Amino acid sequence: MISIVLIGTGNVAHHLFLSFLQAPSVTVRQVVGRNPEKSTPFSHTTKVTTDFNDITVADVYIIAVSDNAIELVSNALGPVSGLVVHTSGTMELSALKKHPHSGVFYPLQSFSKEKSMILKNVPLCLEVKNEADFGILEELALAVSESVFQISSKQRKHLHLAAVFVNNFSNHLFHIGETICKTHELPFELLKPLIEETVCKLHTMQPLEAQTGPAKRNDTQTMQAHLALLENKNHIALYKLLSNSILEVYGKKL
Amino acid sequence: MISIVLIGTGNVAHHLFLSFLQAPSVTVRQVVGRNPEKSTPFSHTTKVTTDFNDITVADVYIIAVSDNAIELVSNALGPVSGLVVHTSGTMELSALKKHPHSGVFYPLQSFSKEKSMILKNVPLCLEVKNEADFGILEELALAVSESVFQISSKQRKHLHLAAVFVNNFSNHLFHIGETICKTHELPFELLKPLIEETVCKLHTMQPLEAQTGPAKRNDTQTMQAHLALLENKNHIALYKLLSNSILEVYGKKL
Repeated sequence: MISIVLIGTGNVAHHLFLSFLQAPSVTVRQVVGRNPEKSTPFSHTTKVTTDFNDITVADVYIIAVSDNAIELVSNALGPVSGLVVHTSGTMELSALKKHPHSGVFYPLQSFSKEKSMILKNVPLCLEVKNEADFGILEELALAVSESVFQISSKQRKHLHLAAVFVNNFSNHLFHIGETICKTHELPFELLKPLIEETVCKLHTMQPLEAQTGPAKRNDTQTMQAHLALLENKNHIALYKLLSNSILEVYGKKL
Repeated sequence: MISIVLIGTGNVAHHLFLSFLQAPSVTVRQVVGRNPEKSTPFSHTTKVTTDFNDITVADVYIIAVSDNAIELVSNALGPVSGLVVHTSGTMELSALKKHPHSGVFYPLQSFSKEKSMILKNVPLCLEVKNEADFGILEELALAVSESVFQISSKQRKHLHLAAVFVNNFSNHLFHIGETICKTHELPFELLKPLIEETVCKLHTMQPLEAQTGPAKRNDTQTMQAHLALLENKNHIALYKLLSNSILEVYGKKL
């Protein structure tokens, strides 16, 4: 049985908590949060505290707070004999330098408050300062997810950057698609099967092979016609830049 | 029973053909293609011809050829008493001006040769020159799809443009994500659950609400750190432009 103390009451803490509750080999000893109101949802099943001097002994302390608060919280905690980890995609392991046993437990997913999600298929990216601590962190990760990876701080930064491209930026393109639909009295529903198919293809093809469209074909007539339809200056600039970027990828292949 | 003649032997023709074969209220009388080799897969169940003077009488003639060949094929066909439609997202209805009964039967999906797909959930966007012809085209569409819309030529152009943003351009962002992963020895598999969740959220939220990430939060520190990691000039330019476009959308909302 691995015992944990969860520090933080936000989105990530909430999702981790629900998954740990369902894992028979994990026990959440305590949830620590500054705001008593935000701690209420956790208090039905678990001891909660707002006092950093009242923290229970545990095998692993998970700091699931916003990036700019990690080092502050780490410094407020301790000294503890257990492993102290944060859950950030971007922060260095050294943010936890106060603690001799430190690591990272980064769930690569976009969590929303509105939508609960178990971690089973969420990739967990692990890192430890001392290799001897990897075993317990891996055991904890495997208790809630089938997708566990050992990733260095440097790799994690690049992974987070790649995540911004595939998640944040593609969602913005969906927003642009919806805006075009609304302006021309078309239901956004029309585009959803196409979006789903774009993602479905990733199971059988690399994005490089799956690429279609006027830029891939260097169909300048269609690209000019599209540019003439656009009015928003950001949409025009994005259409040009994305098309040029595609052209360069496939131009090099010719 | 609606009888059709299918002109074209490419990707779209292939997918339409398979769906029509399975529709009890539709009969494909003939497939017309210039290239006898490409017609072979159709010939097992249906009469095929390469000769435009040998075209059978039918209720609907579907011209499923590449955009720049539509007008040529339309002019080579006829005169016929049935309804003549093309399947393009970008071409005007007037490309079929030779025919008094004309229309558009545009399936909004990205078809690949490698992946067969029935049309059941594919939106079919219909347009007719004479409103009196709408009934038969709608009946034909409903025989193969549950998602049928009447869309004008002007709307269809904007819809195709929106499709480029949500499909072609987001696939290119997936390619960039994969490139970053490869460069840093990370498996692209790590990003797939995140990509799937991005799309899954569209069922319960608008893209405008679903947006997350450093640009949405105006987290300049993370954005600067990301830019410092990028080396490819197109990726840098895209990161800046997409982030600025997101900032402007949410800046306006503050």
